[in-house]
Amino acid sequence: MAAPGKSNGIQLVVVGSIGIDTVATPAERREDLLGGSVSYACAAASYFSRVGMVGVVGMDFPPWCTDLYDRMGIDTAGLQRKAGSTFRWSGVYEENMIDRRTLSTELNVFEKFSPVIPGQYSDAPFLLLGNIAPGLQADVLKQVGAPLFVAADTMDLWIKTARDGLMDVISRVHLVTLNDGEARQLSGEHGLARCARWIMAHGPKYVVIKKGEHGAMLFSDEGVFIVPAYPVEEVRDPTGAGDAFAGGFMGRLAGLGRAPRLQDLREALLYGAVVASFVVEEFSLDGIERQTPETIESRMAALRAMIVP
Amino acid sequence: MAAPGKSNGIQLVVVGSIGIDTVATPAERREDLLGGSVSYACAAASYFSRVGMVGVVGMDFPPWCTDLYDRMGIDTAGLQRKAGSTFRWSGVYEENMIDRRTLSTELNVFEKFSPVIPGQYSDAPFLLLGNIAPGLQADVLKQVGAPLFVAADTMDLWIKTARDGLMDVISRVHLVTLNDGEARQLSGEHGLARCARWIMAHGPKYVVIKKGEHGAMLFSDEGVFIVPAYPVEEVRDPTGAGDAFAGGFMGRLAGLGRAPRLQDLREALLYGAVVASFVVEEFSLDGIERQTPETIESRMAALRAMIVP
Repeated sequence: MAAPGKSNGIQLVVVGSIGIDTVATPAERREDLLGGSVSYACAAASYFSRVGMVGVVGMDFPPWCTDLYDRMGIDTAGLQRKAGSTFRWSGVYEENMIDRRTLSTELNVFEKFSPVIPGQYSDAPFLLLGNIAPGLQADVLKQVGAPLFVAADTMDLWIKTARDGLMDVISRVHLVTLNDGEARQLSGEHGLARCARWIMAHGPKYVVIKKGEHGAMLFSDEGVFIVPAYPVEEVRDPTGAGDAFAGGFMGRLAGLGRAPRLQDLREALLYGAVVASFVVEEFSLDGIERQTPETIESRMAALRAMIVP
Repeated sequence: MAAPGKSNGIQLVVVGSIGIDTVATPAERREDLLGGSVSYACAAASYFSRVGMVGVVGMDFPPWCTDLYDRMGIDTAGLQRKAGSTFRWSGVYEENMIDRRTLSTELNVFEKFSPVIPGQYSDAPFLLLGNIAPGLQADVLKQVGAPLFVAADTMDLWIKTARDGLMDVISRVHLVTLNDGEARQLSGEHGLARCARWIMAHGPKYVVIKKGEHGAMLFSDEGVFIVPAYPVEEVRDPTGAGDAFAGGFMGRLAGLGRAPRLQDLREALLYGAVVASFVVEEFSLDGIERQTPETIESRMAALRAMIVP
């Protein structure tokens, strides 16, 4: 959904993976689900701003998936369709619904992914670089103007295999998001405040350290903001929660239509926590797709009531 | 310290263990430290209310330990001194400063501990039953009048070995506190809200589920309150954090001198998080002993600023 009263131009561009997932939990196994970081992030962002996706799928990408993007008002001008099959991932969650094992990864068309930013996206004020190879994240940065605000997600694989490229990307973005273990791995520090300061010393003004079911923390020169996770009754499928969190907060920031202030980030991160909580309540995008601005505001009010003493 | 303007009577009684600890972390090893749940809880509570301890030590209990209790204004009328040696515990923390292995436990006089509530404590309005055998917790409940508010801590050992006794205690207290794994073990549920509802259905009005470095959650009929952990720069020794948290929040409630309302609990839990954060910054009671009402209020203000959006 476009945020009312905003221009029709794209406010937020999201780059990342699009996949067809098979997910097993102790309770249930589901095949051929729409997944990938871009799908989750764009779906979450779509409630707050006009969002465009940059990703690649194969010729087998099911029409019901693009229909879903359309239904959510996600612009797909940056969606490439290449000869071959769509990226596929299969994983199984442990009893605790946190730890998971990857059963299979078929990169398929994603192996040769070269992100192309459509002309109409190049002036978008907000950019979310999903968790892809730092070299590709850098390619995207070359294709855009000077966005108001760029966030980059990353993961342990790139810290291990592409540290130099990652540090280059980190030096050129406003916000970096990664999980607690990755923050320690990247910085060599243990305490999260020290990890965050190490990262900030290399460029970004903000660092968001994700702690899964325990929420996240925003670090800046002005201190720490503790972002809780919204406590859902039951987690049915945690896949995509981190992507929806990032998409939700970047979407919210983009919808504000101004250079974000710290106060904007704090509120946007709570919106991110809210949309992520809808995601984990169902498989794939089922939980986020069915929301409305009203259900999101209602859960946001509930979350505020849980944290304000 | 007695809370100013309160009566000289004991406002909070804490029952539990007193021990001499040897603690090793990856960075440091320290011997013959004052420890035990009562020591940590009373030290934390002493900043907010007049607190009395019930516990047992051996003839070898060092005078500097009772001096420390005295210095902190902790009443020791309930401290029994028995023939034999004081309880000793030795443990080593992993690199993550969370997981620990017990190297040795010498129960000594604690093995035959039979808590006796001194007459002058029997009408104390607040009671914290530290983590001891449920049978002993029940003995304490028989010796007191009808306290305004009773909280009980417990652990996995009692869930396994004394479930019936534990359920009896749970049915007779206002608040139960335990960690997330124990809440799941006790209730057979997985989601923490469900765990808490199961426990509340067996008696207590409030359940506080502790999550270590990730804070805690307060459950009641009126919903959830998310208690963050105060993010310290460096954890030097996590021993006693949970006890200080419980002592801090019960001390704060006791200092208010009224039947606590939910709003009181929310604020008191944040004070608990603050005093626990001072504890983990140093070994033993070193971190909490050196605080003042001013340093506590200052960190409380900092914590509020980290959670209010």
